[in-house]
Amino acid sequence: MAPNRLQLSKFRNFNPETDEEVDIEYSSPQPGAIPGTLDLEPDAPPPEIILIDYNEHNAERFTLNSPQECGAYLDTESVSWVDVLGLGNQETWRELGKIFELHPLIQEDVVNVPQRPKVEEYENQLVLIALMVILKPNHQGFHREQVSFVLGKNYLLTVQEEPEQDCFDSVRDRIRFNKGIIRKQGPDYLAYTLLDSIIDGYFPVLEAYGEQIEDLEDEVVTNPTPRTLDKIYRIKRQLLNLRRAIWPQRDAINSLIRDGNDLITHEVQIYLRDCYDHTVQVIDMVETYRELTSGLMDVYLSSISNRMNEIMKLLTVISSIFIPLTFIAGIYGMNFNTDKSRWNMPELNWDYGYLFCWGLMIVIAASLVFFFWKRGWFANFSTIRRK
Amino acid sequence: MAPNRLQLSKFRNFNPETDEEVDIEYSSPQPGAIPGTLDLEPDAPPPEIILIDYNEHNAERFTLNSPQECGAYLDTESVSWVDVLGLGNQETWRELGKIFELHPLIQEDVVNVPQRPKVEEYENQLVLIALMVILKPNHQGFHREQVSFVLGKNYLLTVQEEPEQDCFDSVRDRIRFNKGIIRKQGPDYLAYTLLDSIIDGYFPVLEAYGEQIEDLEDEVVTNPTPRTLDKIYRIKRQLLNLRRAIWPQRDAINSLIRDGNDLITHEVQIYLRDCYDHTVQVIDMVETYRELTSGLMDVYLSSISNRMNEIMKLLTVISSIFIPLTFIAGIYGMNFNTDKSRWNMPELNWDYGYLFCWGLMIVIAASLVFFFWKRGWFANFSTIRRK
Amino acid sequence: MAPNRLQLSKFRNFNPETDEEVDIEYSSPQPGAIPGTLDLEPDAPPPEIILIDYNEHNAERFTLNSPQECGAYLDTESVSWVDVLGLGNQETWRELGKIFELHPLIQEDVVNVPQRPKVEEYENQLVLIALMVILKPNHQGFHREQVSFVLGKNYLLTVQEEPEQDCFDSVRDRIRFNKGIIRKQGPDYLAYTLLDSIIDGYFPVLEAYGEQIEDLEDEVVTNPTPRTLDKIYRIKRQLLNLRRAIWPQRDAINSLIRDGNDLITHEVQIYLRDCYDHTVQVIDMVETYRELTSGLMDVYLSSISNRMNEIMKLLTVISSIFIPLTFIAGIYGMNFNTDKSRWNMPELNWDYGYLFCWGLMIVIAASLVFFFWKRGWFANFSTIRRK
Amino acid sequence: MAPNRLQLSKFRNFNPETDEEVDIEYSSPQPGAIPGTLDLEPDAPPPEIILIDYNEHNAERFTLNSPQECGAYLDTESVSWVDVLGLGNQETWRELGKIFELHPLIQEDVVNVPQRPKVEEYENQLVLIALMVILKPNHQGFHREQVSFVLGKNYLLTVQEEPEQDCFDSVRDRIRFNKGIIRKQGPDYLAYTLLDSIIDGYFPVLEAYGEQIEDLEDEVVTNPTPRTLDKIYRIKRQLLNLRRAIWPQRDAINSLIRDGNDLITHEVQIYLRDCYDHTVQVIDMVETYRELTSGLMDVYLSSISNRMNEIMKLLTVISSIFIPLTFIAGIYGMNFNTDKSRWNMPELNWDYGYLFCWGLMIVIAASLVFFFWKRGWFANFSTIRRK
Amino acid sequence: MAPNRLQLSKFRNFNPETDEEVDIEYSSPQPGAIPGTLDLEPDAPPPEIILIDYNEHNAERFTLNSPQECGAYLDTESVSWVDVLGLGNQETWRELGKIFELHPLIQEDVVNVPQRPKVEEYENQLVLIALMVILKPNHQGFHREQVSFVLGKNYLLTVQEEPEQDCFDSVRDRIRFNKGIIRKQGPDYLAYTLLDSIIDGYFPVLEAYGEQIEDLEDEVVTNPTPRTLDKIYRIKRQLLNLRRAIWPQRDAINSLIRDGNDLITHEVQIYLRDCYDHTVQVIDMVETYRELTSGLMDVYLSSISNRMNEIMKLLTVISSIFIPLTFIAGIYGMNFNTDKSRWNMPELNWDYGYLFCWGLMIVIAASLVFFFWKRGWFANFSTIRRK
Ligand SMILES: [Mg+2]
Ligand SMILES: [Mg+2]
Ligand SMILES: [Mg+2]
Ligand SMILES: [Mg+2]
Ligand SMILES: [Mg+2]
Ligand SMILES: [Mg+2]
Ligand SMILES: [Mg+2]
Ligand SMILES: [Mg+2]
Ligand SMILES: [Mg+2]
Ligand SMILES: [Mg+2]
Ligand SMILES: [Mg+2]
Ligand SMILES: [Mg+2]
Ligand SMILES: [Mg+2]
Ligand SMILES: [Mg+2]
Ligand SMILES: [Mg+2]
Ligand SMILES: [Mg+2]
Ligand SMILES: [Mg+2]
Ligand SMILES: [Mg+2]
Ligand SMILES: [Mg+2]
Ligand SMILES: [Mg+2]
Ligand SMILES: [Mg+2]
Ligand SMILES: [Mg+2]
Ligand SMILES: [Mg+2]
Ligand SMILES: [Mg+2]
Ligand SMILES: [Mg+2]
Ligand SMILES: [Mg+2]
Ligand SMILES: [Mg+2]
Ligand SMILES: [Mg+2]
Ligand SMILES: [Mg+2]
Ligand SMILES: [Mg+2]
Ligand SMILES: [Mg+2]
Repeated sequence: MAPNRLQLSKFRNFNPETDEEVDIEYSSPQPGAIPGTLDLEPDAPPPEIILIDYNEHNAERFTLNSPQECGAYLDTESVSWVDVLGLGNQETWRELGKIFELHPLIQEDVVNVPQRPKVEEYENQLVLIALMVILKPNHQGFHREQVSFVLGKNYLLTVQEEPEQDCFDSVRDRIRFNKGIIRKQGPDYLAYTLLDSIIDGYFPVLEAYGEQIEDLEDEVVTNPTPRTLDKIYRIKRQLLNLRRAIWPQRDAINSLIRDGNDLITHEVQIYLRDCYDHTVQVIDMVETYRELTSGLMDVYLSSISNRMNEIMKLLTVISSIFIPLTFIAGIYGMNFNTDKSRWNMPELNWDYGYLFCWGLMIVIAASLVFFFWKRGWFANFSTIRRK
Repeated sequence: MAPNRLQLSKFRNFNPETDEEVDIEYSSPQPGAIPGTLDLEPDAPPPEIILIDYNEHNAERFTLNSPQECGAYLDTESVSWVDVLGLGNQETWRELGKIFELHPLIQEDVVNVPQRPKVEEYENQLVLIALMVILKPNHQGFHREQVSFVLGKNYLLTVQEEPEQDCFDSVRDRIRFNKGIIRKQGPDYLAYTLLDSIIDGYFPVLEAYGEQIEDLEDEVVTNPTPRTLDKIYRIKRQLLNLRRAIWPQRDAINSLIRDGNDLITHEVQIYLRDCYDHTVQVIDMVETYRELTSGLMDVYLSSISNRMNEIMKLLTVISSIFIPLTFIAGIYGMNFNTDKSRWNMPELNWDYGYLFCWGLMIVIAASLVFFFWKRGWFANFSTIRRK
Repeated sequence: MAPNRLQLSKFRNFNPETDEEVDIEYSSPQPGAIPGTLDLEPDAPPPEIILIDYNEHNAERFTLNSPQECGAYLDTESVSWVDVLGLGNQETWRELGKIFELHPLIQEDVVNVPQRPKVEEYENQLVLIALMVILKPNHQGFHREQVSFVLGKNYLLTVQEEPEQDCFDSVRDRIRFNKGIIRKQGPDYLAYTLLDSIIDGYFPVLEAYGEQIEDLEDEVVTNPTPRTLDKIYRIKRQLLNLRRAIWPQRDAINSLIRDGNDLITHEVQIYLRDCYDHTVQVIDMVETYRELTSGLMDVYLSSISNRMNEIMKLLTVISSIFIPLTFIAGIYGMNFNTDKSRWNMPELNWDYGYLFCWGLMIVIAASLVFFFWKRGWFANFSTIRRK
Repeated sequence: MAPNRLQLSKFRNFNPETDEEVDIEYSSPQPGAIPGTLDLEPDAPPPEIILIDYNEHNAERFTLNSPQECGAYLDTESVSWVDVLGLGNQETWRELGKIFELHPLIQEDVVNVPQRPKVEEYENQLVLIALMVILKPNHQGFHREQVSFVLGKNYLLTVQEEPEQDCFDSVRDRIRFNKGIIRKQGPDYLAYTLLDSIIDGYFPVLEAYGEQIEDLEDEVVTNPTPRTLDKIYRIKRQLLNLRRAIWPQRDAINSLIRDGNDLITHEVQIYLRDCYDHTVQVIDMVETYRELTSGLMDVYLSSISNRMNEIMKLLTVISSIFIPLTFIAGIYGMNFNTDKSRWNMPELNWDYGYLFCWGLMIVIAASLVFFFWKRGWFANFSTIRRK
Repeated sequence: MAPNRLQLSKFRNFNPETDEEVDIEYSSPQPGAIPGTLDLEPDAPPPEIILIDYNEHNAERFTLNSPQECGAYLDTESVSWVDVLGLGNQETWRELGKIFELHPLIQEDVVNVPQRPKVEEYENQLVLIALMVILKPNHQGFHREQVSFVLGKNYLLTVQEEPEQDCFDSVRDRIRFNKGIIRKQGPDYLAYTLLDSIIDGYFPVLEAYGEQIEDLEDEVVTNPTPRTLDKIYRIKRQLLNLRRAIWPQRDAINSLIRDGNDLITHEVQIYLRDCYDHTVQVIDMVETYRELTSGLMDVYLSSISNRMNEIMKLLTVISSIFIPLTFIAGIYGMNFNTDKSRWNMPELNWDYGYLFCWGLMIVIAASLVFFFWKRGWFANFSTIRRK
């Protein structure tokens, strides 16, 4: 609320009303289609394919013209990370399917995005579908895309829904400059590292929502408007979407840890446990924010009712004071013939009739004001402000 | 809301108030009836029975005059798909029961529709009950019917509640034109394919509701009426029904995957896993929409309260301004005798009495207007519109 | 709502306000009593005891004068169904306990009604407690009573809380006229058959509530009154009671299917699976109706708020139009002395002063009417009706 | 509500506003204290200790001066029930701890009351913590205290929080007069019997709340006041507390049945199953009442809104009728100069002007009354009463 | 509310609006960072490190200048408690990591605070993360910090987030003065003791909230203001945070008890069971308070509506009484020419016209007052107070 607060927070510029949101609408399958039918635009360009091949001693980076070029690297002992940027076209997948021996259902899940995150074991391959959510650097919304992992004996194939953005640059640097233990480990450790980057990307997104909620906590008590209501609902919906993205990711990682897999070493299991931990923390934050948002909805409704009370009090105070006074004025505006009888409105002819009338009205008004003051109706309690 | 939006969406024409809905009311059993008692109309016509018999090399299609005609095909190595369109009569089931050796309880579940979806193992047979929900092509509502599967060693018996409609045409084409691997697989793969078509049919239905909800998200903040309330409640009820249809389907498929069955090959298990995935996605969408609908109900109530505040503000502003003025007018309408005493309403005889009176009233009115303007009551905040 | 609707439904005559309800209040145990203490009225008459003894070839029916008479039948190979109608007195239970070798805790559960439904295994006996809920034939409410089953090797003992009514007549007919397979099966099949009749009896009861809810769906939007609120709450409470009756029944049947028991053949297990299916459907319906009822409560509250808006709009329109007009009339009712100064209310002496005054008032009234019409306040949107 | 109802119910005298309640606030441990630190008042008197020693043939009762006196009885074959009435002092526990070889943690749980009910196995001992809730005989509230059981091979140690009251008298009688099988059984059966008495004591307490709820069901629709709201909230809180007391008790008994224990014979297990049954019934009742109470809160809010509608209707009817009439009276109170022009209020000089004016007002008032009557505003629907 | 109540409670001084709260915002990981990256301020001072080394016979306390100094103690048979006060800097962790052979992921969890509480097994080490919440001695809020345990064969490493405060002093005393059995036990018992102190510290915090809720229970019915609403919401949020802190702690301790670990003796397991018990009690209290808080929110909304009814009643009473009277006064203020016709307002010339008019008005007013009194509108039911 206060201007200095805006400076304090780097995410406060985010505007949930205009900026990109994280709605998830699953890819709608074509009823009755042959399994493995890919929803690709026929004239889509081929994707950019980056091959990073490394072992403890060397690390090389190639931009491939065609999937076929990576064939030579897959069977060598070195780790081959084939990173496909964009979903490409039918031609791409004919070749990728052949070289990596991908089951049609794997291809379907990788291409018909978004899918629900999951882990699936195939013979000699482990498939992992994840949803990457990243806060855009200039804080103008979120970027959401599916990243699919196919882990084989000596290789890792990753397919990104969109080529422009990912959160993997620091991993690329760690390979290139041999930081940490990544170059000493296999493709399972690489998959863990990338997955870990994806999960870590949820934290700033959630913090952005956490700060929105903090602002709303003030707004909802001090100045509730229909816009507030709209914001609460939208945040609620966005948190629902984040929850849908992260929950299955947690289950997938958990099943990997619990059941194990030949393609994942014991050492990497320990690292996956850390990754699992972080998904649990993300879920914990999402659930907390969801409960807070539900609470805000209740507070909103109560605040609106409070407002109504304030409005009605004002109307009642003004009406209650002036209606009796107007009645008195009405009495002395009657035209009874004072000449006809001394019982007909003798006050009109009193010397101090008018003053008496004013006196009466002032006494009545003062009594009513006192009555309302006693009941505390003049306490301006709608101005409560949080520190 | 905006007219171009109507063009954008193919489902927006759907009107939940007049079009067919997806209410599920389970078949009510006759208390104390013999197990296997079938609720059939005695004079119902026999159903159309289509036999499609195929193997890798050939595929033939027959329209049978009587269930007995399929007897010859059931024991051959080729896959025999007996598709019964409509529930038929007692005669039909006497014959079907004999040829397929159906347990009375199977017959009951297939005929007394609708049943709760499920999988049940019998000796040499696997029974699967599914609910098919399809969006009508001209978007005039939904079509819901039960489809029952009886899977045997070399055959698949399917029974449809109603003969007019199904979503299996593309499967028939795949058999006829030998597309995909269907002709190389057994009746278990055929059952998977049909079930997959049924599940995929839920997606467009849910998208239709998703778009209804999006429209309501605007309506509920900008223009909430009793009709809005009615729509929210109806969508809520329909989602409840969809959930009742899809949840047990998920459990059924899951039990098949988890426990396995002699009639289902390992390869088809993998395909069923994909089918399971899709049921989970459908459930995820249903639950999301249900939560959004609950949220909308809360927003509706808050919006109505907001409206009330607006109405009361208007009444209070008008009353508060005019009641004091009317009081003043009343004062100077009193008939105190100005001749009798100089204390009796001397203003009436002032040269500028009337102007003074107007001045007083203008000052009071202006003060009140200023007071209300200060409190922000003239901010027309009920006109908020989403982009 | 419409009169023809009353004809359409056979349950619509049911009136939840006056007719018998299905409240369940468990038998309250006497603290510290000896296990097996029976809450029987000391001077209760002995119950009617019917023995139906049958095998594949014969079926006989006896009315017993005393429990001791059935002793001779229990050990024969034929199935002996001892049906005790009414709870009887201490004497009855002394004899029944001796002949059937009933554990004191069995006697307690059978006599101190109602108990929570359950299955319990004792040595050589299986005890099943069920709650029977039947819609009275003339639709004047529900009948609820406990039915207890004690299944032994060659016999089935059933004890009914009340002698007047049960839903077992069709089962008696099936035994008498040898319909279906009942005469070829043992007492386990008989127990299944009776239990199945009890479960099937829940369906019409639930349909009666389903139709009540449908009526309320209209009423709550078009004409919400405190009576509506009362009805919603009562249905909610009744559904809660039905749920309490059926949930433990499901668990009991499920534990029988899952764990098996020497007294139940494999063939009867399959029939119990069907019975389990029906309990699941009943629960599904109860839960659906419960959610709809909760939704109705929300709709009710929103409808009441809508009504309030309508009332306030009317008050505001009338007040806003007439308060300014009355103010103007008040102005020209003031008594400023027009003779004293030409500034004092010269309008009173204009030739067309009165007409001018009316003109002014008509312009103001018309402006206000236009203003309210523009804001849509005259749209009579409270008259929405469902088709 | 009706006076005869008060006679019908023996619990209706209970007043939740003034009488003792069942709030549970767990004993707050001293952070960092040595395990086994006992919160005892240093100058507390020693507790009364009753030893009842019995076998099939004899039963003796001793009042012990000191815990040490029971040492001689513990190892004999007869069952020794050491009943400690009150928590005593440090000295008591030094001796009790030595004789019964109590682990410090057992002592802590027994003395620092209340603890959450539970069962814990120690070497050669089984510890059971239960919460006893009894309705006071004169219905002036509830009595709640912790009862702890330490079951050994030939003895049962029970410790009661307060010496004045318990619900074990009938058990003492059963031992003394050799009623039932208690004298033929071991200390495990004794423990079951006492626990059963405790559980049975919950039923009258819950019935008292059930009747409170029934009264509120009327009150909330016919005459909702802030006092009603207060009562609903208090019952809700009390039910929450009862639920906290009984839930862990159920889990404790269940774990005993499921896992078995050397100190409990198979025969007593069957009796414990009955006890478990009763805890489940208690929980079922608590949950039902909780749901009813939540429903009442919703009904309350709706009833208050209904009331508001009634109030506003009255205001609107009166205002709508009199405001236009007052306007007309205001018109003819204007002082336009009828002498100056024939257009100035000629009605004032008509012969029947005054009667015309009254006629006009009567027509307007009648039209408005008819309008409100048509809309059903005079239907006094706030007087609905339940039978 | 009453002043003596303030004295009764030692926590009532706590002011949730200004004092420190227990919000938990998990440490936000740097996306893509190398596992083991520590979020430390580069110029942070080294932490204070206290080594307490003890066995049954001796106990020594050292303040270490550097982590390396503890190397000599770790392998000896005596228990070495290395207590690191503050998170220190990179240098600290390089050394600690080397001496204790800490996995990088352990270091990350210990340093990047707060983490979600958990237990994790590593080779030869058991890591436990706990959140300590302590009520500040002067009741000016809460202190929350992470305490991490690394349990090895002969040592326990604890790391505290902040050096100023902990709740371990009594444990230090027990070691120093050889109180209880702590000196006879291993590091596992020490870990239990510290964890127990942490859990016990939740009780006073919860009691503080319990008392806040009790105050609000009065306030919400007798004097609900927006400040009340704000307080309810804040308590709700704080309870949500406490729940997030304690739930995972319970799961962690439970997994230790259930799965066992070589580093924990059977005897300490029994003590951990007690500790688990206390976490369950804490959770039970948190959940109870959460439900009460939700109930308070409903009560608040209802109270506000009650208030509105009171306000509207006042307005309606005053308007209904004075509007008809003002109308009558308006009638006799009309200027019909009484000279022109005897039908024109003859009352004005009656001898007792004015008295008749007053009589009429008094009768009307009295009737209305009687009407409102009959309906109970003057019952001042908003003044209900709890004892
Ligand atoms: Mg959406
Ligand atoms: Mg597909
Ligand atoms: Mg898929
Ligand atoms: Mg990308
Ligand atoms: Mg991470
Ligand atoms: Mg926060
Ligand atoms: Mg329906
Ligand atoms: Mg049946
Ligand atoms: Mg069936
Ligand atoms: Mg069909
Ligand atoms: Mg599919
Ligand atoms: Mg959309
Ligand atoms: Mg709600
Ligand atoms: Mg009752
Ligand atoms: Mg008993
Ligand atoms: Mg029992
Ligand atoms: Mg009966
Ligand atoms: Mg059935
Ligand atoms: Mg219907
Ligand atoms: Mg308390
Ligand atoms: Mg302790
Ligand atoms: Mg303890
Ligand atoms: Mg006692
Ligand atoms: Mg009992
Ligand atoms: Mg009841
Ligand atoms: Mg914060
Ligand atoms: Mg990391
Ligand atoms: Mg970590
Ligand atoms: Mg510290
Ligand atoms: Mg503790
Ligand atoms: Mg609740």
